Order: sequence, then C-alpha cells, then structure tokens
Amino acid sequence: MKVEIITIGDEILIGQIVDTNSAWMAVELNKAGFELEQITSVHDREDHIVQALDQALTRADVVLCTGGIGPTKDDITKQTLCKYFDARLVFNEEVLRHIEDLLRHRRRAINELTRTQALVPDKALLVPNRVGTAPITWFEKEGKVVVSMPGVPYEMKTAMSSDIIPRLQQKFTTPEVIHKTVLVRGIPESALAITIAGWENNLPDTLHLAYLPDFNLVKLRLSAVSFTPELVKAQLEHHLAALRNILRDAILAEDDIPAEQLIVERFAAGRLTLATAESCTGGNLARRITSVPGSSAVYKGSVVAYSNEVKTQVLGVDTTLLERVGAVSSEVAEAMAVGAKRLLHTDYAVATTGIAGPGGGSDEKPVGMVWVAVASPGGVISKEYRFSLGRQLNIERTTQTAMLLLLDLLRGVRPESLL
Amino acid sequence: MKVEIITIGDEILIGQIVDTNSAWMAVELNKAGFELEQITSVHDREDHIVQALDQALTRADVVLCTGGIGPTKDDITKQTLCKYFDARLVFNEEVLRHIEDLLRHRRRAINELTRTQALVPDKALLVPNRVGTAPITWFEKEGKVVVSMPGVPYEMKTAMSSDIIPRLQQKFTTPEVIHKTVLVRGIPESALAITIAGWENNLPDTLHLAYLPDFNLVKLRLSAVSFTPELVKAQLEHHLAALRNILRDAILAEDDIPAEQLIVERFAAGRLTLATAESCTGGNLARRITSVPGSSAVYKGSVVAYSNEVKTQVLGVDTTLLERVGAVSSEVAEAMAVGAKRLLHTDYAVATTGIAGPGGGSDEKPVGMVWVAVASPGGVISKEYRFSLGRQLNIERTTQTAMLLLLDLLRGVRPESLL
Repeated sequence: MKVEIITIGDEILIGQIVDTNSAWMAVELNKAGFELEQITSVHDREDHIVQALDQALTRADVVLCTGGIGPTKDDITKQTLCKYFDARLVFNEEVLRHIEDLLRHRRRAINELTRTQALVPDKALLVPNRVGTAPITWFEKEGKVVVSMPGVPYEMKTAMSSDIIPRLQQKFTTPEVIHKTVLVRGIPESALAITIAGWENNLPDTLHLAYLPDFNLVKLRLSAVSFTPELVKAQLEHHLAALRNILRDAILAEDDIPAEQLIVERFAAGRLTLATAESCTGGNLARRITSVPGSSAVYKGSVVAYSNEVKTQVLGVDTTLLERVGAVSSEVAEAMAVGAKRLLHTDYAVATTGIAGPGGGSDEKPVGMVWVAVASPGGVISKEYRFSLGRQLNIERTTQTAMLLLLDLLRGVRPESLL
Repeated sequence: MKVEIITIGDEILIGQIVDTNSAWMAVELNKAGFELEQITSVHDREDHIVQALDQALTRADVVLCTGGIGPTKDDITKQTLCKYFDARLVFNEEVLRHIEDLLRHRRRAINELTRTQALVPDKALLVPNRVGTAPITWFEKEGKVVVSMPGVPYEMKTAMSSDIIPRLQQKFTTPEVIHKTVLVRGIPESALAITIAGWENNLPDTLHLAYLPDFNLVKLRLSAVSFTPELVKAQLEHHLAALRNILRDAILAEDDIPAEQLIVERFAAGRLTLATAESCTGGNLARRITSVPGSSAVYKGSVVAYSNEVKTQVLGVDTTLLERVGAVSSEVAEAMAVGAKRLLHTDYAVATTGIAGPGGGSDEKPVGMVWVAVASPGGVISKEYRFSLGRQLNIERTTQTAMLLLLDLLRGVRPESLL
C-alpha cells in the first residue's frame, strides 16, 4: 500500500526549518507495512497544494499532509482541502470545547483566532488532536485517503501513533516489512562492495540490499516486503549467516542503532561505568550518551573543559604540561581522560581535545586536528585524527570517532589496529 | 527564477536519514535570489526519477538533484540522467586522475568500483567535485538546467557554494531577496496575531508576513523578492518601526539567530563569562553554546552532573540537602548553579535538573518536571517548568528554556515577570 507525504509551508522551502517530520513518519509507516513512495514539500499556495495532491493521488492510496493548519492568515491548507473535496467549513461545538479545555490547562484564554480552529470541513472525519488546537481531518474519495495534520512535530507524532496509523491499518491490508541493518566498521564502501560482490550477486530478488555509508562505518541494509514473511525471514537469515562468515570482526553490530546506544547497552551488560572530559566536542559526547534512556545506569557525567583553566583546576591536568605541549596534544588528551576517570570514579573515561575551527589553528596544529583518549582499567591510550570539514562537522565527527574508538577498545580490538 | 530540488535515495523514504541537505540548499538558493518552488524525495528507481524530473521541469528552470551517484549497484541516478538526456557514458581521464589523487591523499587504493566513477555522460558539463570521487554533472536543455550532485552533505555543500550557485547566477538574472525576522518573546501566536492585526492589514502586497511559532517564542518573518530592492527595504524599515512601537520589550532580537548565539554575542559585548551545570540536559546546553564560533571567549565549560555523586563531589552540592529535597528541586538547582559559578570562576552560571523520562518519575515529581537556576552577580534564582513530551523533546525544551531565562535576566526582565 503506497503512501505519500506532502509537507506544506513556506518555512521549509526557505530553509527556516529542517523537515524532520518526514523521516519520523517514514520510519513509522514502514514499520506498519506501508511503502512511502514520495515526499513533496510545497508552498502555502492553493494551486501548488492542489497540484501536489493531484499528482500524489495518481501514485498513492494515502496522502498525509502536514502543516499549514494554524490559525493565522498564511495557513491555507484547511480552506484548500475544503475546495478540493467540495466541502464546506462548519462550526463544530465539540472541537471548540476541546480547544477551550486545552487552553484552560495551559492557562491561556481563547480568542477569536483560536476560535476559528473550531471551523471544520463537513465532509471530513475528525481525528482527535490530543495535544493541540488545530483539528486533524481525514478525507476519503474513491477508496483513497487524504489526511491533514499539524506540522508541529509533537502534535503530528501523537496523532500518527495514536490514531492515523491504526486507522490506516484497519482500512488497508498491509504486508510485513522486514529490515535488517548490519554496521560494518573499517572497510570503505567501495572496498566492501568488492569484498561482498559474490555474496551480493547471490541474493534472491526478494531481498533488496542498500549501502549507506556513514562516518567510519558502512551500514548494509537488507530489506523485503512480503505477505509471506516467514519464508523471507528464513531467506534473510540464511544470507545473513553467509555475510557474517565473510565480514566477521568487521561487523560492529547487527542493528541500526547509534554508537551511543551500543555504548550504553554494552557498558550496562558489563556493569561498567563511564565518564567523559570534553574540550573540542563541547558537551556533544555527553549529550549523545545521555540521549539514550537508561544511560544514567552507566554514565556518571562529563567535565566540559572548554577553557584551559577548567582542564587544570577541575580535571587536574598539569599546568606545566599544558604550557609545554599545548591543549591539543596526546599528553593533554590522556591527562584529561585519566583526570575524568579519577574525578568521577568510573571504569572508563573518554576525552577529546582539538581545534574545531574556524579560528584557533596554526601551521603546526591546523583546524581539524583532534586528539581522542580513552582511559580504561588497562591504562590510557590516545589517537590523533585530522578533520577539515567546518566547525559543526568537526565536532560531530570527533564525537562519533571517540565513541567508535571506545567501542573498539571495549570489544577487544588491539590498540595497534584501532582506527 | 524557480528552482526545484529532487533528493534521490531509498534511505530518505524509509527514514534512515533526515534530509538536512534541502534546508541548507534552500537557504543558500534564497540568499542568491532563487525561489525554491518544491522539494521532492524519490526512490532509486528509474521511472520515479524520470517522472519527478518531468514534473519539476514544468514548474522550474533549474532542477538540482542530490544523491544516487555513488559507485554501488543501488545508485542509478547517473544512468537514468544519461537516458533522460539521450547521452552516453564515456570514460574521462581527467576525472580518473582526480579520483586517484583524492584516494592517494586518503591513503586508499583505487579499485574497479571507484574506477567506474570516471564514466561520465558525454552531453554533460562537469562541475568539479573538490572533496569527493563522484562526478557532478550539469545538463542543459531548452534553456533549463539539471544538475546532479552527491547526497553526501559536505560534498554537496562544497559544490553548491564553490561552483553551482555561481554558475547559476551567471546564467540567470536574479532579484534580490529581502528577509527580516523578529523574535517575539512571551506572546502566544494567536494572541500576537490579534495584537498586530491592524499593523498586518496595513502591510503592502510586496511584503509577505509569516508566523513561525517556536518554543516560547514566535518568529515573525517579513520577506520580499524584488528587482528594486532599495524601495522595498525602505518599506520594510517603515513597517518594522511601527512593529517595534507595538511590541517593544516583547522583541527579543531582530534577527533569526538561535538563543545560544544571542548569549555568546551579549556575553561578549558585556565582557561576561558563563558556565553551566547540567543534570537532565546532559551536556546539551554546553553543546548548543559551544556550537557558536568564538564561544570560548565567554564560555568556560560545564559540569554534566548526571549522577548525584558528581553533584556533591564536583559541584559541592550538600549531601544532606540532596537527601532532604531530592535532586529535582529548587534548592539543588540553585546549589548546582552557585557551585558551577564558583568552581569555574564565572560571572553567570546556569543549572538544569529534572526528569527527562521515560523512567524516573513519581506522583510528586512526574516525568517532565524541571528546575532551571541562574546564578548571577546579583544572586541566584530558579524556576520550575513542566514538560510532558518524551525524553528528547524534554531535553531540548529544557535547554531552550534555560537559555531564554538567562537572556531575560541578562536584558533586565524583572524576576517576577520571568517566563
């Protein structure tokens, strides 16, 4: 069953917001057995919305529209859908009471504008908006469904999970979607493609393979859509076993989960604790790790030592060492890791120090030069990396690199083969 | 001049990656005077790519395609464009030498697969890919332009900035785009719309107004596209002055910049220093602040005190206080802020403590309960907030709330009127 998303709003097309909604919706739709055929972002303009709808309905059975249903003048999705489905806007008492309840809870008064949100198309089913004031509408025509929901992520997600996906599953019979992602460490994409070419050529048509290169990782995704899932799952398991035989230790994990989640899971399994000491990553390591629910069981905290003063006074890095070799050095990275491990009483500590840019570089220590150190029960090691990608990317890559280095050490990769 | 983006790749449509490229491209295209008409995400499938191209070319003069040009089997954009423009793939020595140079620099060997990247369509102009191996191609037909570039963000950005946008500007005459965004604090969207209704109705047709509600902020965006920019700028300035008269102190800033950048700019201007102490935000405050280039001039660092042990041993929070009132309390938030201010020797310190969820809540202290404290030269204050949005959003909103609270204090909002 094919679904399309139309995101409506000038703010996406001028780049004021990044469309994170669609990726979330894609994941949920796939899980529920729907194929997402296309995502289209259009302006808050009647002719544009109508054209996108017309075209989407030629390809898909379900069109999910987000955005453009706020109470202000620039939002015209509701009016446009009314015209499209030849409906009239009528005042709905129940919606008004819901809006009043919600605003009372937020200690806000209703006004003439929020009141207009209670005007709803007479030909649409209403889907509850459990956490917002804009009504969510469900139109049907010739067996096809068009839903209009808010672009506010929390409202969209609540409606999708609680109501829209369950209703779609009731209306349509969906196949099972089978996905398997293998994280491969240490082999660049093209070398990997050659390594597994024989295996890849042996894959049956039912299994689709995709390469998704990530930083210092390649994700291999095997997927299938089937009404006979048991059969396909057995096929997948068979080919996966063959892949394991080829790649062996290069497989970091058999799940598409981020490094921070692998860290939390593996530290929890080993009853180990972790701390971080961050200079150039500026708290990003801590943020990524604490984004994992349950991370508090293994992660004690971080010292973001952005100034040298904090490196010496809080982490106990020797002032003369700092003066002699500079903050961006193997020695200081290691001293930071050892300092954090001691200060926060943990089994492991990871430290980062580097020049994220755009300023602060020199000939000897250019922007993008980074040292990562890991202190462990077995001692402390450090590695140098060079990035040259602009500040945000240098920070992200340093963070990712530090986590992968920690994971490699944890799974026993020998220090001399560390990436 | 209208432009469309087509992103090609199954990974976007199954939600494995979020399309951040398009928002970046939208901003850069707008700055350069191009209107982005539509963004379309399609599968790695020939018929789908061709249909999207056909439809985009009916609306736009320029179509920018990203993705699907890697060396692996699943990538078919190059082959599809060849068919579309009736071109042949020919081997290009110069591209091969570039690939060899690049791989040598990365200390990697060329292989048969990377070698195929040197096959390029004979009817396309080549745009240099300065940082990657996939060739970037520029097709022209009946005055319209189709460009195909990598989906890898760094490669796409380098090509867009260095080559593609300059070439487009050479080929097409573009108007000036005028944008002005005003950040309004403390008035919900619908109340704001009523407050400025008279002003809004007075706006000339040349100026377009959009409301962009953000958390605890509404962004008002005035925009215009014009070949007579001086005239429009004067109009805009005139209406902006009127808006200032209506909103006064509710205007937090007249620029679409994030709270962290306002903090760094205002602290730098006042020669003030800042530290943070983070429990529930887990390093996210530090990350946001250090994401601003030059933040090291004002920001000394953070103690991410994820465990209570770190709160007491590093930040000096009284153990008996923690036992008596619990970590999520006004008292502990304030003690953390005061502790960080003292430990890191700063003028200001912000602390967060709360229950991000999904676990850890109780009747008395439910998930989403958060305390934020700010220690300043004038003393320490704290405020309670309640969120109920899921872990990531609770973390994001707490971070944003803490930064806005700090900015309000800094600009002299009286403690009793703090939001």
